[in-house]
Amino acid sequence: MTKKNPIEGFSKLSKAAKIEWIIYNYFDNAEKSLNTLKSYWHSNADIQKLHDEFIENSLSNFYLPYGIAPNFLINNKLYCLPLAIEESSVVAASSKAANFWLNKGGFKSTVISTTKIGHIHFLWEGNSFDDLNKFFKSIKSKLLQSTERITQNMRLRGGGIKEFSIIDKTELEKNYYQIEVTFETCDSMGANFINTVLEEISKCFKNELFASNLTENNVNVIMCILSNYTPQCIVRSEVNCTIDELHVDKEINPAEFASKFKTAVRIAEVEPYRAVTHNKGIMNGVDAIAIATGNDFRAIEASVHAYASRNGKYSSLTHVDISDGNFKFWIEIPLSLGTVGGITSLHPMVKFSHELLGNPKASELMGIVAAAGLAQNFSALRSLVTSGIQKGHMKMHLLNILNQLEASEEEKLKIIEYFKDKVPTYYSTIEIFCKIRGIENLATLRINKK
Amino acid sequence: MTKKNPIEGFSKLSKAAKIEWIIYNYFDNAEKSLNTLKSYWHSNADIQKLHDEFIENSLSNFYLPYGIAPNFLINNKLYCLPLAIEESSVVAASSKAANFWLNKGGFKSTVISTTKIGHIHFLWEGNSFDDLNKFFKSIKSKLLQSTERITQNMRLRGGGIKEFSIIDKTELEKNYYQIEVTFETCDSMGANFINTVLEEISKCFKNELFASNLTENNVNVIMCILSNYTPQCIVRSEVNCTIDELHVDKEINPAEFASKFKTAVRIAEVEPYRAVTHNKGIMNGVDAIAIATGNDFRAIEASVHAYASRNGKYSSLTHVDISDGNFKFWIEIPLSLGTVGGITSLHPMVKFSHELLGNPKASELMGIVAAAGLAQNFSALRSLVTSGIQKGHMKMHLLNILNQLEASEEEKLKIIEYFKDKVPTYYSTIEIFCKIRGIENLATLRINKK
Repeated sequence: MTKKNPIEGFSKLSKAAKIEWIIYNYFDNAEKSLNTLKSYWHSNADIQKLHDEFIENSLSNFYLPYGIAPNFLINNKLYCLPLAIEESSVVAASSKAANFWLNKGGFKSTVISTTKIGHIHFLWEGNSFDDLNKFFKSIKSKLLQSTERITQNMRLRGGGIKEFSIIDKTELEKNYYQIEVTFETCDSMGANFINTVLEEISKCFKNELFASNLTENNVNVIMCILSNYTPQCIVRSEVNCTIDELHVDKEINPAEFASKFKTAVRIAEVEPYRAVTHNKGIMNGVDAIAIATGNDFRAIEASVHAYASRNGKYSSLTHVDISDGNFKFWIEIPLSLGTVGGITSLHPMVKFSHELLGNPKASELMGIVAAAGLAQNFSALRSLVTSGIQKGHMKMHLLNILNQLEASEEEKLKIIEYFKDKVPTYYSTIEIFCKIRGIENLATLRINKK
Repeated sequence: MTKKNPIEGFSKLSKAAKIEWIIYNYFDNAEKSLNTLKSYWHSNADIQKLHDEFIENSLSNFYLPYGIAPNFLINNKLYCLPLAIEESSVVAASSKAANFWLNKGGFKSTVISTTKIGHIHFLWEGNSFDDLNKFFKSIKSKLLQSTERITQNMRLRGGGIKEFSIIDKTELEKNYYQIEVTFETCDSMGANFINTVLEEISKCFKNELFASNLTENNVNVIMCILSNYTPQCIVRSEVNCTIDELHVDKEINPAEFASKFKTAVRIAEVEPYRAVTHNKGIMNGVDAIAIATGNDFRAIEASVHAYASRNGKYSSLTHVDISDGNFKFWIEIPLSLGTVGGITSLHPMVKFSHELLGNPKASELMGIVAAAGLAQNFSALRSLVTSGIQKGHMKMHLLNILNQLEASEEEKLKIIEYFKDKVPTYYSTIEIFCKIRGIENLATLRINKK
């Protein structure tokens, strides 16, 4: 790659001009690349325009496969989950767990709390936190008043500001204080609402301070921002059955399965190297629905993993209890979700997902998403402690490998049949492919193609 | 929503039958819902089939906007970054940071290490770890030999097994031991490779154990699995300039900006509520490229956030140093990325992204992704400590609100003009929209529509 030239004022160019620029500067086969980009546009220009306007410099769409997992019984209601995910075997694992728990009472989800939080972070060079606190209390109602216009609609829906207080953080950093505000944002995720309220409070706070006798001490507001860490916005989901009901595989008896399963969870509780992968599997399910329902998965990921490390050591999000012949498996995670706002009422496939779920409220969605995470974890552990993870995973990934090899439909069927009772690996797939096609190895294939 | 009926054998149905089932069971307006699903199919049936085969029960595609950010100077090479993301203002923030650092030497990225890791987790009821360790050493070459066929191709590319050892973990859990294997997986992310190797080693380990004099002590292999936690797969990216060069805004001088910026980073270093949001912003950039290049963002998220908590308290991934009139800002994160394998050579838009980046090796991609994360953080902090986050964000989100209101193109232009010198909020946007349309409030609009 040669050194390219920078471009000025790129964001102001038309979409066509942006595309022309990158194709000219970065692609060898201009026509092919242009066709690829355009082939991913929606056929309806108005809908494509809508998608383009979600972000800046949008040139096309990135396809994530949109799959579904039926038979999820959650709080006695039967759901079919929408899952937007590129990884093979996640949807299959979801469906398998859903079917397993369907006749055992399904998933029981409970929203424990829904409070969200934001801060005005500031430096104050005064000496007495008492003075600052007194001053804060004296202007608290004014601060609240300053937000009334912004919070009006949210209050009508039963939400708004819950509490606010000033906190001395000078132990962490010299002169560092916070105004901490907690919120109820009802069915919206609430990021824009919270940030707008915080910025308004900050403005009023500064004005009041300048008009007070505390001005001799410098105040420097560093930033106003919601926290994506939401340990007060928690949902729990659980499955349980008798140990006798744990027939997962003819090669392992229920008691042995329960015991191995419990050890596997225990290992994730004590060993961070395992906990990370364990929780990653949970997030396969969580993110897939979060994306399909128009939620911000980066916010969820950050909160969930920070929560997993809250006791000083990164640990499992799920737990098992075996007692009196009963098996209980549960998850407890922070999930700040929205069913209104953002792109939820704009993106047609997001609207489709919400309708598929019966247009749930945010708290109902929390319960669904937590169950999806627990289901993923159940299936992953089930495979890990019995056949191993590769059997199921590679079975699902097999088609990707065959597509890479550009296998014909006939070849695909033969090879899938071949692996019916074996675990495919990347290399054994190539071996059998070469054998069926009658070539020595992949190098031969590449030469023949040229 | 009424109680639905479960369905058996769903995964074996054809795509058409699956669609028919959910439309019938979950949607009021069958025709409209069906049309939505189908309108998101690729116009080329072969390409759609390829996308369908990535996962199970795939019915359609979920569009993530695909945008680009030009002018990224990274290690003296000029990149245009592909970003698949639904959140407004992320691409704009990327571009802004790229432009800011373009004439200041750009981003300097360094791959520190690329080792990946996997474990065979097992219970052993023996007493002497010494005996177990001796036995392990005596069969080590046999274990390695058992993997030769699987690792052959990886070894030809310069990768394979780096080391393996047996570890006593009984302090964490009774009878718990690990065989820990470290890997170099070159340009592949390596999950399937690592898991396949571990399962093979485990099989051989069990066989050897049963043939030994240690069999009197029960061995129970719980699971074989890679770790997504990759603190030995680390990349660092840095920007620096003199403080005098930090002209970001006419309302703040460079020294004051540097100081506020440093305090903001410091707060993220000491206060987890802030650190989570701080790092979330970084991941906006990281995930957007990870997705566009076909990488598994759940694996990256899990590793990065666990890394952020490695010292016992969740903390910032970026850091600032100001000394001798110089400003230095850097990130250090674990990034296990692949440029081959998975869907990278299959998904046409993934291939497009790789070509846009000049078909980088995995280590080069690590440097690009780390720079993108650092860029996001720079822009977020820049906004936070100057105008506040809402000004830029709401400007970008304004179109989404206007699309929600179904504003006409003419109305959109008028409203964008109106907010040219003001920060839009959700409610002020609705206010001005109602004024321009000449209606009292949104309720009027809804009544008129009915």
